[in-house]
Order: sequence, then structure tokens, then C-alpha cells
Amino acid sequence: MGRRTVIIDGHRFHALWLRDNCPCAACRHGSGQRLLDTRSLPEDLSIVRTAGNGDLEVTFSDGHESCFAPAWLRRHMAAPEGRRRRLWDARLQTSLPSFRWDDVAAGGPALREWLAAVDELGFALLTDGPTEPGSVTRAAGFFGFVRETNYGRLFDVVTVVDPTNLAYTGLGLGEHTDNPYRDPTPTLQLLHCLASSAEGGENTLVDGFRVAQELDDDELRLLAAWPVSFRYADAEAELEAESPVISLDARGEVQAVHYNTRSAQPLRLPDDVVEPYYDAYLHFGRLLESFAFRIRFKLRPGDLFVVDNLRVLHGRTGYAPTGGKRHLQGCYADRDGLRSRLAVLSR
Amino acid sequence: MGRRTVIIDGHRFHALWLRDNCPCAACRHGSGQRLLDTRSLPEDLSIVRTAGNGDLEVTFSDGHESCFAPAWLRRHMAAPEGRRRRLWDARLQTSLPSFRWDDVAAGGPALREWLAAVDELGFALLTDGPTEPGSVTRAAGFFGFVRETNYGRLFDVVTVVDPTNLAYTGLGLGEHTDNPYRDPTPTLQLLHCLASSAEGGENTLVDGFRVAQELDDDELRLLAAWPVSFRYADAEAELEAESPVISLDARGEVQAVHYNTRSAQPLRLPDDVVEPYYDAYLHFGRLLESFAFRIRFKLRPGDLFVVDNLRVLHGRTGYAPTGGKRHLQGCYADRDGLRSRLAVLSR
Repeated sequence: MGRRTVIIDGHRFHALWLRDNCPCAACRHGSGQRLLDTRSLPEDLSIVRTAGNGDLEVTFSDGHESCFAPAWLRRHMAAPEGRRRRLWDARLQTSLPSFRWDDVAAGGPALREWLAAVDELGFALLTDGPTEPGSVTRAAGFFGFVRETNYGRLFDVVTVVDPTNLAYTGLGLGEHTDNPYRDPTPTLQLLHCLASSAEGGENTLVDGFRVAQELDDDELRLLAAWPVSFRYADAEAELEAESPVISLDARGEVQAVHYNTRSAQPLRLPDDVVEPYYDAYLHFGRLLESFAFRIRFKLRPGDLFVVDNLRVLHGRTGYAPTGGKRHLQGCYADRDGLRSRLAVLSR
Repeated sequence: MGRRTVIIDGHRFHALWLRDNCPCAACRHGSGQRLLDTRSLPEDLSIVRTAGNGDLEVTFSDGHESCFAPAWLRRHMAAPEGRRRRLWDARLQTSLPSFRWDDVAAGGPALREWLAAVDELGFALLTDGPTEPGSVTRAAGFFGFVRETNYGRLFDVVTVVDPTNLAYTGLGLGEHTDNPYRDPTPTLQLLHCLASSAEGGENTLVDGFRVAQELDDDELRLLAAWPVSFRYADAEAELEAESPVISLDARGEVQAVHYNTRSAQPLRLPDDVVEPYYDAYLHFGRLLESFAFRIRFKLRPGDLFVVDNLRVLHGRTGYAPTGGKRHLQGCYADRDGLRSRLAVLSR
């Protein structure tokens, strides 16, 4: 009879855990992929012998022998490193993460810093870039791949401000996340300015994770507990997906925000939940518009920004009715490519 | 002073809910998008007057008047329609959802049925298609868009079975979901057969949602509570993301399975959780391999299958060491495109 656990430097390691993580060439490939199929382990596996000066040698009841480096074991005793996430509010206005297109396009440290800003803050700007249509997908190529959708590889956002007709004055647009009716929701959005002769029309951003901290536990619980259905339909597409306004991960931490009053469908809630839910929903929505949390900037032709679309909400201020045109191009991309490029540049 | 709620056909409607869903042209665009920004509603909104024969006319304390059709109100009293999800086990073997490439490529009812099978069962086959390389991305185009990754728009899976060297005998591959180290995980995978002269090498599939039903509450809770980190690294990429093995949605229903023993990193668990977690993890893993739940089929050149990669796990049986070659091409795509095409075809 062996033991189920062994204690090293005060940390208890279980036989199953150790055997599952055996680093030998038969159990793990040089690439780091596990060759051992975890489910082949006997449930009653035990440790029949340990030895070693320095390295820990373990013989298991299935006859296998493993050898663990102390540094590797120590690394796995510690709590996992937290996300590089840095929450922000309106005070970030004085130090917006802004980088020059040419520097970032050259790759290397400037690209790394730009991607690190997106990873930490959920957005970053790129200035003084080209004004050719299609440049937005080139920017996505700096780190990853365009997520093509029924809107195409890229889409146009054009506002013509007509001072003779107030109805055509570009109205402001409240803070929102894009395309919550997709499954999966695009995790990154890029917006690139080709023309901006209209007055006003500033872009606004707000850190949804920061604003979620302002909610009390009951509000957070309500917004996380009830899924909202989001929908978009036109002649060629019919997209519908549901998400709670605030998604919590397995640890109970805020993982995603889906907030878009344009595409939200009528809420399906039990009678007694409607009023408290709306109270929380309206409170969250108003906080998202609060000057205390929001930053703003005006894109010039050639400027671009990228946002983490599950965290940072974007909006737009209205235009002065003095005429002019605003033309942006946007595209979607995903976080895995961005984080991968950042990790490789950080090696 | 108005009322907060009004009762219609025994169902209670709240002032905020009704006002939020006002169908008038100022509040809702013809496309179905909401023009009213929900967060502009006063929290203490009430109903000051109701009237109407047939249609329900409501005057709110903010002065707005809305008119609701009885049929629309009735539709929103009912519980939402459930997913078209149909869980399955090994008994599905005798009635695999299989369609002919040419029929599906022609669009119309055959395409609709193929997509409906993927939506309901989490997979479907396509047979007698072309054997030209690159055809797999054409199949993705039948309903949506390829998700390009660092593996390219498509990737090759080639196994050469060398009977002179057992080490090169293609081994079986346990049931797994693909690329759990991506954020977001690809929601659909397509695999297309170009050559299959080797004996063996059958594809196997298992419905992860069905198998999850076999777990007891404690096991389900453990597998849902603790995120697993999945990782893949090579010279050009470093991908890492975490998900619990079983993800539950806001209603507590199984929403996704991420199971891949090759890319799973050492589990980070409190001491007292390690053993019960491994018990649940091994139990689930073994059930995934059980003949009671698994179906199998051999792809001939020109055949293809698509799986819902958050629900249906795929694997491969081993090869007879008699020589031969197996060449598949795969690509990733996403569910929103598939469900959109299905919805449009179902109009």
C-alpha cells in the first residue's frame, strides 16, 4: 500500500496530480503537449516510493517512475499569476495609450507595447496611419486574423451631417458592446478613421469591468443571473444569441460584459424579478455614461483604435449641425491572436 | 400617481418592461433594433392610463403613449422556446445524420436539413464530395465563414502508417474538443477526407452534453467550479486560455465542454479538492470513451463532417499496421453563421 500524497516544502502533492504531470518523454512531448491520456490513470493510484537529492523521484503503484525538478514543483505550489488587467476610469484621459502606426507596423517593442496596452487596459490607439480604405484589416494583421462575418471582412460606418435637416444630424450613441447577437461574440473590434470633417463625433470608451465594481452584490447577481437575448436580422442574416449583461467566471470574477440596448430583446423575467432587474440594469447603464468613468478622443484621418469588446464599451458623442462627413471602417478580430503575438514578442 | 404594473390575461406586465418595448416608430426601428436607449427611462416610471379594445394602449408617467398588439403580448408571456438541442448516445449509430455534398451545395431544403442536424445533434456528415484540397473551406462557405488562425485558413492532418515501425502506427486518439487554448474557442470544426487507404482510423464522436447527464451533482459542480488552463506553444505562437471542463450558463444548464488532456496544464486546485476533482475528471473522461455513448464512422475520400466543438467531442481509432495513408483537411468556423443561415432558410 502506498500513500496518496507526499509533502514537499510544506506543500501537499497528490499521486494523481503528480502522475498526470510526469515530464518524461513517454508522458509529455517536447512541445509541452501531454502524451499520457489522463483518463487512463487508475483512480486508486498511489505513491509507493520517493527518493532523490534535489530532483524528486517518485515510483507509482502503476509501476511508472517520474522525476520532478524542484523548481518546477515550486512554480506549481504558488497561486497562479493574475491577469495583467488594469482597471481604469476617466482619469486615464490624461494618459491615453497611444502609439504611432509606423512604429507599431515595424513590429518589435512598439508592437509589443501596443498589444500589452490592449491586454491590460482593454483598448489602445494607433495614430498617423494611412487613410486608404482597407487599412483596418492591415492593422488586425499586426497581431492576428480578421473575424469575417456577414458584414464582410470589414464594414463602413459613414455619417453625413446635413445642417439643413436636423433629423440627419448625427446623434450620439450610448456606450455599448458590439454584436452581442453573435456566438461567439467578437472579442476585439478595430475602428479606423478615413475622414472626419464633421464637428463633434468624438469616440467615447468606458471600462465595463471598472464600472461593474460600482454595483452592489445584489445588482451584480441579478445582471449575472438572467440571460438577455440579443438579435439582429436583415434580408440575409438572422443572428440571435443570449448572454447575461455581466458574465462571471468560475471564480466569480467579471469575465464579460454584453450591453447593447439596440439589439436587446424583450427581457424574459419572472414577475417578481422585473423591477429589481430593471433597477440594476438602469443603474449599470447610467454608470456606463457617467463622466467619472468615460474617456473621449477624436479620431483624425489615419487614426485607429482597438477595443476588447467583452470589457470596454464604446460610444460616440453627437455632431454639431454644421455639416461635414465622418467615415470609419471597422473589423472584428479575436484575443487569442493578440495574446499569442504579445507572448511571443515577450519571450 | 400611476401603477407600476398592469395585468393582462392573468400575466403581470411592468411599466418599465412595457415602456422599454414600445413598438412605435420613435422607439423601435423597422429592422427591430431599439432606438430608445433603455437607460434613459426614469426608474420610477409608472402607468397612468390604459385603454383599448383589442390593442393595449398605455400612457406612461413620462408622457409617452404606446400601443401593444395582443398577439405580441401573448408571445412574451410564454416561456421562451427551448433550444432545438437533441441529446444522443451510441444508439444514434443506426441513423447517422448524413447528407450528399451535391444536394447540400445546391442550397435550399437539403442545406437547411444539414444545418438543422448540426444545430440539433451537434454534428452532421456530408458524403460523396470533391477530393480537391481546399474543399473543406468551400463547405464552411455553405453556411458561414472560416475562422482563420495561426494554423491558417485550413490545416492538414496526415497519418502515414508504416508497418515496418510500430512507433509510426497511427495510434488512437481519445475523445477531445479542439483548441480549448483559444479565446474564444472555435465553436465549429470541419474535417474533410482527401485520402484514406489505411485500415482503421475511424472517426469517433460523443455528445458531451449527454455524457454530462451521467455525472452526479457533486461531480458536475466540481468540473464547473475549477477552471483548467489549456496551452499550446510553438515557434510562432503561444496560446493559453482557461475554461472549466464543463461550463454552465446563467440558468445552470450545460453550455460548453472543454476537454483536451493533451493541452491541459497542471491543475491549480486547493489540497482538499485535488482528489475529488480527479475522481470526477477521470469519471467524465472514461464515460466519454464508453461504447454506450460513442458513435463511429469511416470517412471515404470526399466525405466530411462538422462538429459543434463546444458540445461534441471527436476522436480516432488506431490503424491496423498494414500500411497506407490518411489525409484529412480541417478548418474552424462559428455557430452564429450556421444558425443565421439556418434561420434564413427556415423563413
